[in-house]
Amino acid sequence: MPPSNAPLLAAGPEVVAIPGPSVMPARVLNAMHRSMPDIYAGDLTDVIDEVFDALPAIAGTTSRAFVPIGNGHAGWEMALSNTLSRGQLVLVLDCGRFAAIWGEMAEFNGLRVETITAPFGQAIDPAVVEERLAADTGHEIAAVLTVHVDTASSVRNDIPAIRSAIDAAGHPAMFMVDCIASMGCERFEMDAWRVDVTISASQKGLMTPPGLAMVWAGPKALAAHESADLRTRYWDWTYRTEDGPYYLRFCGTPPVSHLFGLREALRMIDEEGLEARYARHVRLADAVRAAVRAWSTEGGLGFTATVAEQRSHAVTSIRTGSIDADALAHRCRDQFGVTLGVGIGGEPGTSFRIGHMGHVNAPMVLGVLGAIESALADLGAPTAGSGVAAASAALAAAGHDG
Amino acid sequence: MPPSNAPLLAAGPEVVAIPGPSVMPARVLNAMHRSMPDIYAGDLTDVIDEVFDALPAIAGTTSRAFVPIGNGHAGWEMALSNTLSRGQLVLVLDCGRFAAIWGEMAEFNGLRVETITAPFGQAIDPAVVEERLAADTGHEIAAVLTVHVDTASSVRNDIPAIRSAIDAAGHPAMFMVDCIASMGCERFEMDAWRVDVTISASQKGLMTPPGLAMVWAGPKALAAHESADLRTRYWDWTYRTEDGPYYLRFCGTPPVSHLFGLREALRMIDEEGLEARYARHVRLADAVRAAVRAWSTEGGLGFTATVAEQRSHAVTSIRTGSIDADALAHRCRDQFGVTLGVGIGGEPGTSFRIGHMGHVNAPMVLGVLGAIESALADLGAPTAGSGVAAASAALAAAGHDG
Amino acid sequence: MPPSNAPLLAAGPEVVAIPGPSVMPARVLNAMHRSMPDIYAGDLTDVIDEVFDALPAIAGTTSRAFVPIGNGHAGWEMALSNTLSRGQLVLVLDCGRFAAIWGEMAEFNGLRVETITAPFGQAIDPAVVEERLAADTGHEIAAVLTVHVDTASSVRNDIPAIRSAIDAAGHPAMFMVDCIASMGCERFEMDAWRVDVTISASQKGLMTPPGLAMVWAGPKALAAHESADLRTRYWDWTYRTEDGPYYLRFCGTPPVSHLFGLREALRMIDEEGLEARYARHVRLADAVRAAVRAWSTEGGLGFTATVAEQRSHAVTSIRTGSIDADALAHRCRDQFGVTLGVGIGGEPGTSFRIGHMGHVNAPMVLGVLGAIESALADLGAPTAGSGVAAASAALAAAGHDG
Amino acid sequence: MPPSNAPLLAAGPEVVAIPGPSVMPARVLNAMHRSMPDIYAGDLTDVIDEVFDALPAIAGTTSRAFVPIGNGHAGWEMALSNTLSRGQLVLVLDCGRFAAIWGEMAEFNGLRVETITAPFGQAIDPAVVEERLAADTGHEIAAVLTVHVDTASSVRNDIPAIRSAIDAAGHPAMFMVDCIASMGCERFEMDAWRVDVTISASQKGLMTPPGLAMVWAGPKALAAHESADLRTRYWDWTYRTEDGPYYLRFCGTPPVSHLFGLREALRMIDEEGLEARYARHVRLADAVRAAVRAWSTEGGLGFTATVAEQRSHAVTSIRTGSIDADALAHRCRDQFGVTLGVGIGGEPGTSFRIGHMGHVNAPMVLGVLGAIESALADLGAPTAGSGVAAASAALAAAGHDG
Repeated sequence: MPPSNAPLLAAGPEVVAIPGPSVMPARVLNAMHRSMPDIYAGDLTDVIDEVFDALPAIAGTTSRAFVPIGNGHAGWEMALSNTLSRGQLVLVLDCGRFAAIWGEMAEFNGLRVETITAPFGQAIDPAVVEERLAADTGHEIAAVLTVHVDTASSVRNDIPAIRSAIDAAGHPAMFMVDCIASMGCERFEMDAWRVDVTISASQKGLMTPPGLAMVWAGPKALAAHESADLRTRYWDWTYRTEDGPYYLRFCGTPPVSHLFGLREALRMIDEEGLEARYARHVRLADAVRAAVRAWSTEGGLGFTATVAEQRSHAVTSIRTGSIDADALAHRCRDQFGVTLGVGIGGEPGTSFRIGHMGHVNAPMVLGVLGAIESALADLGAPTAGSGVAAASAALAAAGHDG
Repeated sequence: MPPSNAPLLAAGPEVVAIPGPSVMPARVLNAMHRSMPDIYAGDLTDVIDEVFDALPAIAGTTSRAFVPIGNGHAGWEMALSNTLSRGQLVLVLDCGRFAAIWGEMAEFNGLRVETITAPFGQAIDPAVVEERLAADTGHEIAAVLTVHVDTASSVRNDIPAIRSAIDAAGHPAMFMVDCIASMGCERFEMDAWRVDVTISASQKGLMTPPGLAMVWAGPKALAAHESADLRTRYWDWTYRTEDGPYYLRFCGTPPVSHLFGLREALRMIDEEGLEARYARHVRLADAVRAAVRAWSTEGGLGFTATVAEQRSHAVTSIRTGSIDADALAHRCRDQFGVTLGVGIGGEPGTSFRIGHMGHVNAPMVLGVLGAIESALADLGAPTAGSGVAAASAALAAAGHDG
Repeated sequence: MPPSNAPLLAAGPEVVAIPGPSVMPARVLNAMHRSMPDIYAGDLTDVIDEVFDALPAIAGTTSRAFVPIGNGHAGWEMALSNTLSRGQLVLVLDCGRFAAIWGEMAEFNGLRVETITAPFGQAIDPAVVEERLAADTGHEIAAVLTVHVDTASSVRNDIPAIRSAIDAAGHPAMFMVDCIASMGCERFEMDAWRVDVTISASQKGLMTPPGLAMVWAGPKALAAHESADLRTRYWDWTYRTEDGPYYLRFCGTPPVSHLFGLREALRMIDEEGLEARYARHVRLADAVRAAVRAWSTEGGLGFTATVAEQRSHAVTSIRTGSIDADALAHRCRDQFGVTLGVGIGGEPGTSFRIGHMGHVNAPMVLGVLGAIESALADLGAPTAGSGVAAASAALAAAGHDG
Repeated sequence: MPPSNAPLLAAGPEVVAIPGPSVMPARVLNAMHRSMPDIYAGDLTDVIDEVFDALPAIAGTTSRAFVPIGNGHAGWEMALSNTLSRGQLVLVLDCGRFAAIWGEMAEFNGLRVETITAPFGQAIDPAVVEERLAADTGHEIAAVLTVHVDTASSVRNDIPAIRSAIDAAGHPAMFMVDCIASMGCERFEMDAWRVDVTISASQKGLMTPPGLAMVWAGPKALAAHESADLRTRYWDWTYRTEDGPYYLRFCGTPPVSHLFGLREALRMIDEEGLEARYARHVRLADAVRAAVRAWSTEGGLGFTATVAEQRSHAVTSIRTGSIDADALAHRCRDQFGVTLGVGIGGEPGTSFRIGHMGHVNAPMVLGVLGAIESALADLGAPTAGSGVAAASAALAAAGHDG
């Protein structure tokens, strides 16, 4: 009786392995579980200071961050509205799905948009960017917009290489990078890579429930801000000055709970260390990739991101070939208590995603892979070998060489 | 030794009696304290349905609400950007502070703004509104903006009377009302009073930590939306359709924790009943006002809101005359563990505010009043009699006549 | 309509002013809200060390405490079983209710019991103790058992005076004192006062939910332990050695959540300081007593504890004379959201109790007193004046003289 | 650099896979996170009623349970003291470690004790029990004490078979069974199996933090209670009557937080259903056993419980042969964030234990097994094959046949 059987193995703590919102640490949830403080003085202002002081380092910059209450799309809109003017042209570099949506927002908000789209499953080719910018001899393009990691395709762009392409073209466009899926998980160096605007949000590698975005603004962006005519009050950087009362930084009442939570998350990041954090994400991603390779068959499972070095360390999209990805996801959830991320892009039912970002470790990754393997077997899906065994082996090796 | 004495009586649960963020119920905080669910299906979508279904009733309307992640200012910007176009004229009715700030936002965002300002401490005079609108024979004024309750002055406008004034002038302007300080506390009937756009936020009478705004849009507003050119993607009502996937209602990742919290708060409101809730706020406000009257002396304490029937049932601003309001607030906080709201408007140090909104009851109000009375005595401030005794007496009477 | 009226003012945070379990600090509840750790090593063992190291000081002793999982009665049984043998005689000094119950336990467990009962509302007279012990020339009495504060009558015994009485009689009996209602609230000096066994529990002044008892054992008690034949394994002090593995201190699995909670509570006590804590309890008790005096009428409200200097600073029992105490308590709870402690001892419906122990401060006490005053007025009960006004005045004075 | 490498993969939620305290559901922790209620009326008394009404069914009985605040040892002492008298003889059946400790308690508390010890790794042989009881023609043996599952050896006794042995011997001894490690995980039918006293505790299959024990007393035990002379007040069943006030059931202040938590846990058990729960534990245990078998080598890993049908479905003890079990446990914890249970019994460092009891599911078990496999590889330990692959395969099969 499959129906009555279904829930048996799913009791116990639900495991949600989607690429964000990710697993929230108990420390963060406990920090958010508190009564409301005074919002003009005392504890909350200390928290705000600590959060704003800590944010630059995690983006590899000395530039301050703005922190709108909102999600990642709020970060996108804050970035656009503070730096651009109606009718300006932006060049969107899309390697999956999210840069394109950002571009749609830019167009809706009054900008002209031109998009370079990488073949699905591949990162942006910097040479194509250089070629397009070199052709823009009038410097009509005001900004280049892209993502560090595309959450849909799980492809990671080579940001330094794109920066070099812009430079090689001698083009003055601002360079804006969405790091929503990668911040705190994958190395990102805003200053060293000369990114002008960096965008992130709380709910993935930063381990805080959705509801906060972050926008780091470099000097070129702040200069553009002076004359940008898309500016509106809610997003406006000048209004959100750090010189005035604390609530102005949030254009009104501060997001109390989230600030206490984010403060705790930033402390956890500091305690672990960014380098250790990046290394952890690489190793866990390697384990996931070892599993996918072990399962992989002709016409069966494989990577959405076709080029190995372009695969994100925070999320992995897996194409399922002849296997029904939706059936697999349902089996994982109903039988084994594991919720996978739905595939985005491509035909429906042909891929799924695993988030391995933020507050994640070896038993979580292995448990998810093990449950997928059980579900694959349960469905009679073809696999070349045991993915979870390969992942365990990969993690063992990781233990040796530091 | 006053310094060492100071903290003695302040141990125990801190009481923050500011006019928002208010006291959060344990039920709400517990509901927010949870792991992240799938955001495409399951529990979260049930919560979203329940929240959206419950929101119309609390505003006295059948119109649906939009729920931007953000604070009250986000609600303001959503309302303006979805219904108005660059260069249009709006008439702001200010009776304290917050309508004026909303007007500043409107101007910054490209609207022309004209403001009618009530004498400080008084509500808007509907006759003045009627006169101005009647003079606008060309119907240049696209919208009338005001607040239901001004959180600074604690004055409540007579919204039905202003509506009648607009009607009497035969003016087609949209009528937009900010109910951030009053929603869930004071009677508000969007449909019966023919308000076109109502704005609120989570952190006051709705008993949910700051981070969510609500904008209820009536038919006239939705019609105006069609041609409004201030629209941007993050705020856009059309994009936030209920017909598509749930995340579109939030223009991206939903605010998971807040939605679980707001759902619980809305259930609590439903369990208590809106009428009982309004009656409770009246009685507790009456107790506060009985205290202020008992304390009141020539040149000493008194009401900021000079007209009795204009005093809000959710917040009370108290002018302190010759008494240093800042010294009083510090004494309350440091000696007695009670944080008062700072006065806004008027000379610095000449007023303070007490929030009595949302999750509040007799012992809370009496405890705050008692601590203020102790602090007043401690400062040697003149008072005509015992405010807390008068408040206790007022609440006793409230018990009798139902 | 009183029924529909009833709940109106009771919405908001329920205030439970019973004499224990008392108000739990958010810090303590949050510390308890955690996953289970390893019980053999790591965090938990650090917590156990910190708790055991901190417990002696709060009892004014250098003797170690034993910490049985259990309530106050568990503490009683641990004390008796570890130090006494079947058929031995104990002298119980009862000034309310709880010493007598302890005596019933002693008798049930195989001891002979003789009880000195103070007139209700009065503390034990040390002269009577001295007289009885002097008459016990054969030193048949093995132990003297009493309470520091009786939670029922709210009478505080003069422990040093009783100690002096024992000494004056030249009697070698062990002196065992139940400090369940007073520990952390009222000064207690186990070593200076030469108490041999002190008993307390977590849920009152120690601000941790019920479930832990503490028994501090002095040298005389540890010596008596060697030959006591009431010993059983669960309570046995020798088995609960600190020399072995940590779980032995709890005779099995440690009470994980409570230990994390108690650790946090002990840190809060340390941060406030014991002297400041005692002073706070005196002042808040003074405020309660000022209210009772102000309400007091011939035949109406008054103190159960008839002698002023014998009144506890942690709990106050109030006799209600002609007023129906049960009706008053129901009115407080149903109308105003304040739960009072039921009266214990005397005729039913003739007294009630207010707990003012542990995590308590001025607004809490004033809120409870104000609600009682409202309820008294609501019932038409006779009162001489405003108790809550008197309490506010008393707290103001407390602010001056440090 | 192993040291700096160590913590990398251990970030993320700590997984504690010890055989109790087990993983606590968020629902239970949230239910415990609350302010203290009145203890004489209202919510708490509803909770107590619900808990006491629900407890019989989970033990397969109509007999009521007593619920001492305490751990499992408290349950043992309550059972002994309420039913036996000094000098009586009890027969202890030990198949690991815990029945023997219970026997030590019995002896300490004044009983005579005779122990039948199974060969380590094996269950009690019912024939041996029958033989001994048949030889006790004078019926000197008052009670037979054993465990359902021994948490140390992970051996499960055949309780119906032992019952049959007692019957076959025609012996009237009471039959007392410790179900601390099995209750809520493995089928147990107190009434059908004619067990007279059943003992459990909150922290394993009942998913509530340590601090509560349960003792179900059948008719024969209640009859023996009448004349038992080991009775003491704290444990006494008569005093803990359900006819009086609620606090008497706990011999004093009730364990408020734990009762709210246990109520929620019992609701979760009811929602899942006992049969589904037993089936889940069998399947997850089968997965663990599939892994052990796959790893198993001559001289390497293997089962402590040597007979397949005697292996518990709640805990598995694994002997490590030539592999250093302590090194393995440290590697699991430090490298991979998984805490294993230390081995109990046998030479130090030669075994470890995995708890798979209560709030546990497929990804948790697979994650723990995967981490162990990684650690084994990391240590260069010999294994015959991939245990985690075998476990995934076992769970897949479980999905098919319901």
